[in-house]
This record gives sequence, structure tokens and C-alpha cells, in this order.
Amino acid sequence: MTDFDLLGIGNALVDVVAQADDAFLAANNLDKGGMMLIDPAQADALYAKLGPATESSGGSCGNTMAGFASLGGRGAYIGKVRDDQFGTVFRHDLEAIGVTFKTPAAQEGPSTGRCLVVVTPDAQRTMSTYLGAATELTADDIDANLVQAATVTYLEGYLFDPPEAKAAFVRAAEIAHAAGRKVAITLSDSFCVDRHRASFAHLVDSHIDILFANEDEILSLYEVNNFDDALQAVRGQCEVACLTRSEKGSVIVSGDEVHVVDAEPAKQVIDTTGAGDQFAAGFLFGYTHGRGLAESGRIGGIAAAEIIAHYGARPEVELKTLLPSG
Amino acid sequence: MTDFDLLGIGNALVDVVAQADDAFLAANNLDKGGMMLIDPAQADALYAKLGPATESSGGSCGNTMAGFASLGGRGAYIGKVRDDQFGTVFRHDLEAIGVTFKTPAAQEGPSTGRCLVVVTPDAQRTMSTYLGAATELTADDIDANLVQAATVTYLEGYLFDPPEAKAAFVRAAEIAHAAGRKVAITLSDSFCVDRHRASFAHLVDSHIDILFANEDEILSLYEVNNFDDALQAVRGQCEVACLTRSEKGSVIVSGDEVHVVDAEPAKQVIDTTGAGDQFAAGFLFGYTHGRGLAESGRIGGIAAAEIIAHYGARPEVELKTLLPSG
Repeated sequence: MTDFDLLGIGNALVDVVAQADDAFLAANNLDKGGMMLIDPAQADALYAKLGPATESSGGSCGNTMAGFASLGGRGAYIGKVRDDQFGTVFRHDLEAIGVTFKTPAAQEGPSTGRCLVVVTPDAQRTMSTYLGAATELTADDIDANLVQAATVTYLEGYLFDPPEAKAAFVRAAEIAHAAGRKVAITLSDSFCVDRHRASFAHLVDSHIDILFANEDEILSLYEVNNFDDALQAVRGQCEVACLTRSEKGSVIVSGDEVHVVDAEPAKQVIDTTGAGDQFAAGFLFGYTHGRGLAESGRIGGIAAAEIIAHYGARPEVELKTLLPSG
Repeated sequence: MTDFDLLGIGNALVDVVAQADDAFLAANNLDKGGMMLIDPAQADALYAKLGPATESSGGSCGNTMAGFASLGGRGAYIGKVRDDQFGTVFRHDLEAIGVTFKTPAAQEGPSTGRCLVVVTPDAQRTMSTYLGAATELTADDIDANLVQAATVTYLEGYLFDPPEAKAAFVRAAEIAHAAGRKVAITLSDSFCVDRHRASFAHLVDSHIDILFANEDEILSLYEVNNFDDALQAVRGQCEVACLTRSEKGSVIVSGDEVHVVDAEPAKQVIDTTGAGDQFAAGFLFGYTHGRGLAESGRIGGIAAAEIIAHYGARPEVELKTLLPSG
């Protein structure tokens, strides 16, 4: 038995969440519902225009690890923060739920990364991310013992933006496979796939066992126009592909198997951001705990349904209380 | 006409809010619903035991100024943060709502103060405050021009804990009165009154025009056992005394006038912390905008009713939309 079920590698970010109207988005050239990368000067300028905000730990993979721990999984995380207050917050919020996070904080260089999240009255979230210290993650931060000790190593696709982090992920994948472990990735964002399509396609083909993508992302990866073509394209590229389709549920593809999993009914739909992160948490919990593919997909749906029923990208209830017995 | 309606002087704090159960309070010797002061080592130790948290600007007087600005008042604030991320957050959240905040951040010494808020399932908030940089506020930080430019200078009673801040307040009161302005104070907390009773009584008698106190605080100040005795004791000690009584509303005493003001019906009661801060915001908005004492008390009640209907100590709606026409 491994020490950890899941090791996540991601951009360590603190979310700074404020409300604003559509006119604010337009005035600041923000694409509603999207994620764009910004530099420190842009981050400061945008923050100065934002209304009162609240801060909380975020990062796509950080949110997945929070969900995974909430389901009862044994998780670890690798990511880079600075030795500042936001870095302390990010580390605390992972350790407080039992996720092992030992990557040393940078003692110089950019501050801990932050994601400025603008919530419009229609509950959409528009994100502007200053990666900060997250860009300082290098292959040297990949703790080989940790990778070897984890059943699955899971990468956030957003890590493909900082180039050193991309190298770090390849290192992690090689260590994992040499130790007989599995490697998973989420494509994270269709614009991110656009920026790095060739790298992603090569990585999926050569290093990935379990792929997570939503419809936009998988269409972008294979440059096709419809879901069925994307499904045919991904088949055989990796051991398992989990394609999420919002209210249409998910499709799990593995060799000749295709499982169509209905979406779990949500109590209410307040904020759909983060559904993908929690789907991955749920699926990987099932996968690492001997549940079948369809059952794992259903657990992914249960975790996603919890997160979309409230604001905020980390679970508000212990997800393990929502698990089907298995 | 003055440049500002209200200048608030307070402990600049960032709230770190986490959920926990009663057993957590007991295990950590926390007195439910109370506020205790802790040192940095205690703050770190308690934070390490806390679950995942969210961060947001707080501080009793900071919250009052947020409410005051939300009502449409022209506000300024004096308080001390460090030049760190929490200090930046605190400053941003005041400036973002139009409150002038020019006190320079400390460039050395303790970090920005923080209040660790434990929310139990019964929605009570138990606060452990590390004052940090707030204790560095001195009489030198009192900008005489700002005090002279404000119709009312309002002090947070919690400032009586750091001794230098107490001196700063006396300085501010002297400048205000020399300029023909008014001085207000909230007693903040009955334990704070217990610790500093003689100072408070002397201050109220010699420097205060407008006093805010809840029932516990005014009983403690005059060491009496019932509200009527407290009311008689405070009469004549200052121009106006606003005594708040939770669901029983408030009593405004001024010379021979006694106005009994019913509580404003709240949509729901989720979290009563911060009701006093918003009552002060509403009353002082009315007072500085030519409303009568009873009407000002009613505006205080309206602001308090908004805040207790949700979690968090700063308004979620623009309070000016709730104002009675006047």
C-alpha cells in the first residue's frame, strides 16, 4: 500500500474575490467567465479598482486536494508559495484538512500567486491570475519519494503556463511511471490548451494514464468540432479519459469501455466554477479506492454537485458523508 | 461644512474566520462569544489548530466605517497596519468603499493584527485577537488636520488595550474639541471596560460627547446591576448616550430627552456579532446629516438589522438603499 492515494502538483494561489457588474468587466477588458494571466503591475492596477474583497485559498489543484481530503483520501501537494502571509494562508488551509504539503516556500522573488476573481450578479466568476511564486516551481521541487509514495500523481494543466513547471511535471511523470504509479492531468482551460496544444498532445500521448477534460478543452486539444469526434480521438491515447459535460454529466472512456454517467442533481446551482476540480477529486477518490470507472464517475458528480450549490471552490460539507456505500 | 462626516480611530485587523465545534472551544480554553487578546505565539498555535479559514478585513471601527460609507457618509480612518499583505488587504477594503485611510503602514515591528474568529454551529463567534501592528499606533499618528476636518471623531474602545493608543485618543479628542468638533466612543466590550474602568469613566466624563454602549458594557462601566440605574448614571455624563439592547432596540439619552427606539425587524438572525458597530455607523450617519436623535437611532437599527441577517461584519448591500427618506 502506498503512503498517499493522490499527489497533486499545481499553481498555489490565494483567491481574492470581489463583486462587480458587467460594466466593470467591460471597462477592464475582462472576458466574462474566462481566466487570463496578468503581470504584477496589472494585478495591482486591477486590485486597486476592485471593491472590498475576501481572501481564501484556491488554485485548481489545491481545490481538488481539498475535495479529495474531504472525501477521506490521503493526499499530498507540491506547489510554490513565497514566505509571506498569503503563502502561510495557502499552506495552512491544506494542512488543516490533512493534506501533506512540504514544498519549501521561496525566500525571495515574487510574492505568493493570487487570482483576482470578479463575481458578477449572474454568479459567473471571471479570473485574472498573477502566478507570482507559483512560476518558481522547478523540477528540483519534485520530491521523488513523494511521487513514488503516491498511487496517482495529478497535474493541473495550468502548470503549462510557467515553463519551468512544465519540466517539473515531466520529471514527476517519469518518476511515477518508473515506480509503477499512475499519472493524471486535467487540461484546466481551453485557452490554456490553445496556448500549449502541441505540448499537451505530446504529454497525453506519452506520459498520461488518466485525462480529465471538459468539452471545450477536449475539442481544443484535438481541434475537432463535435464531442463524438473528440471521444474517438482520445480513445486509446491514455488508459482512462474522463470527459465532463456540465449538466449532461460525464463520459468515461477506457479502451473499449464507454461509461455515460448522468450528472448528480445539485440542490441549487449558485456558482459552477470549480465543478471540474471536484469531479477530478471524486473520480480519483473512487479510482484509488477500488471503485469501478462508472462508480468513480458518479462520485465525481457528487463532489461537483456539492461545489456548484454554493459560492467558493472548496467543499462546505464533509464530502465523505455524501459518498454512496461501496 | 467639514471635509469628513466621521473620522474613525481603531485597531486595524484582518479577520481569519474558521468553523469549529464547542469541543474545540473547550479544548483551547476559548470563552464562547467573547473576545480575548493573545500574543503572537498563542496566535500561531491557535491558527495551527484551526480548520481551513477565509480572510477578510475587520476591526470594530473598520466595520463601522464600512457601514458609514455604505450609507453614503464621508469617512476617514486612522489605524496602524504593517507593510505586509494583510495590511494591504485592510487598506484596500477601506479605500475601495471610499474611506480615506492615510496612516502610514509600519515598516518594522509586528505584522498586521489579526482576529481569529471561531464560528460554532450555533452561529456564535468567538474571537482571539493578536493586535500586532495595531499596538504601534501612537499620538504621532493622529493627523490633526484630519481630526479638525471631521464633524465627529469616533473611537473604538478596544483601543484602550494598547496603552499608546489610549494616549492617541486623548490627543485626538483634544484636537477635535479645540476645533469645535464632537467626539464619540464605543465601549466595545464589557471585559475591555472591566480592564480599564477608571480610564473609561474619566474619559467619558471629560472628553466624550457621544457614547455607545450595550447593556453589559454600561452596567460594567457604572458597576450597577440594572439598566435603569445605568441610564440614570450616564445621564448628564455626555451630550448623547446610545444604549443598545439587542432585540429590545435602543435607548437614546440626551439631557432630559429619553428616546426608546424599537429594534428594526431583521430578515433573519444569522450572526449577531457586529450589530453594535453598524448601529454606531447608522446613528452617526443620521447625527451628522441633521436627522433627529430618534431618527438617527432608527437608522442605527436598520444598519444593525442588515448585518445580523448574514455572516460577516461588513454590509452586503448598499445601506443607503435601506434609508428612510428624511
